Amino acid sequence: MQIKRRFIVVGHRAHTVGDFNSKDLCGGAGRWDVLVRCVNSSFFLSHALRKDTELMVVALGPTDAPKTVRFCGPELKHLNPDEWTTGALVKKALDVPVGERERPSTEGIFVSKRGLSEVLGSLEGPVVYLHEHGDEVDTALGELEAPINFVLGDDKGLEEEEEALLKDAVKVSLGPEVLHSDHCIVLVHNVLDRLGF
Amino acid sequence: MQIKRRFIVVGHRAHTVGDFNSKDLCGGAGRWDVLVRCVNSSFFLSHALRKDTELMVVALGPTDAPKTVRFCGPELKHLNPDEWTTGALVKKALDVPVGERERPSTEGIFVSKRGLSEVLGSLEGPVVYLHEHGDEVDTALGELEAPINFVLGDDKGLEEEEEALLKDAVKVSLGPEVLHSDHCIVLVHNVLDRLGF
Repeated sequence: MQIKRRFIVVGHRAHTVGDFNSKDLCGGAGRWDVLVRCVNSSFFLSHALRKDTELMVVALGPTDAPKTVRFCGPELKHLNPDEWTTGALVKKALDVPVGERERPSTEGIFVSKRGLSEVLGSLEGPVVYLHEHGDEVDTALGELEAPINFVLGDDKGLEEEEEALLKDAVKVSLGPEVLHSDHCIVLVHNVLDRLGF
Repeated sequence: MQIKRRFIVVGHRAHTVGDFNSKDLCGGAGRWDVLVRCVNSSFFLSHALRKDTELMVVALGPTDAPKTVRFCGPELKHLNPDEWTTGALVKKALDVPVGERERPSTEGIFVSKRGLSEVLGSLEGPVVYLHEHGDEVDTALGELEAPINFVLGDDKGLEEEEEALLKDAVKVSLGPEVLHSDHCIVLVHNVLDRLGF
């Protein structure tokens, strides 16, 4: 199946080697807990996985930054909704010896030594930057064609030089409150579902 | 602060005594993992907790059913977004010796031996049943006044006799896909945020 929805989340402190305990993603892994919750909200329907979706996590923490872990919906199999089993898959992916060229880890999970700029450079389709001061989401997304790429920060938002890479992106707001990244992904999916995207 | 948004989630298999390991909420606790993710989505904004929200989990699993664990937004303090620390708080609440009269556990968390019928009987304000075959959410919620009570099932949905208790509730649909309960809560909050509720 073709990718129609792609989420790119930047984890500024997220460890880039598997030097952590997958049951301590918050402290020992540099907030991989936030990112692993994005895996859940990117892919889980009540009794199925979203096969038209891809998630790329750009990890920028110690000790081998940057690294991008790509979760590819059409190829993902044994995903569980809890944090620690996904944490264990991430740890495994980060331990794969890798260069700029992407390498597979477990089914549907790939890893490469790419940062945000390389990832953005590789994308097809419009780029949307989810931001509290953006256009109203229903209208903005109704005008775009697949695949749409959504860029989000982690719990700290994006930095100035990262925002500079997004100067041509469509800025879209999901509502008046500032939300966790995984909750933003739930909202984007719902808007697209209701648009029949 | 006054409660304006209240979520009632029924956990059919959720254990009603703390006989589980808080790091094995999926298997050993009768899918408390699903319910604990509802705690996250009920209360977390990016850098704050929603103080106008309450969550009541009606647990119907072994070995002391029914029990209702109430998470009270105005009084909640040390909540973490990860599953296992909330799991530990739940385990503690379920070990409080309790009758039909509610008793406090940790800050903002209360427990009682009430089932769905007693909980519904105690509510003020309109009751909304989130269901795939309901009215369109923005319109339906725009007509209601606070506090609004939203009833959801766990991963199995509600049973016939539970649905019978909700025959006078407003049926509201969140979109064309069937979603996890915690994702439904994110969507409801967003609709109310955008309505300025």
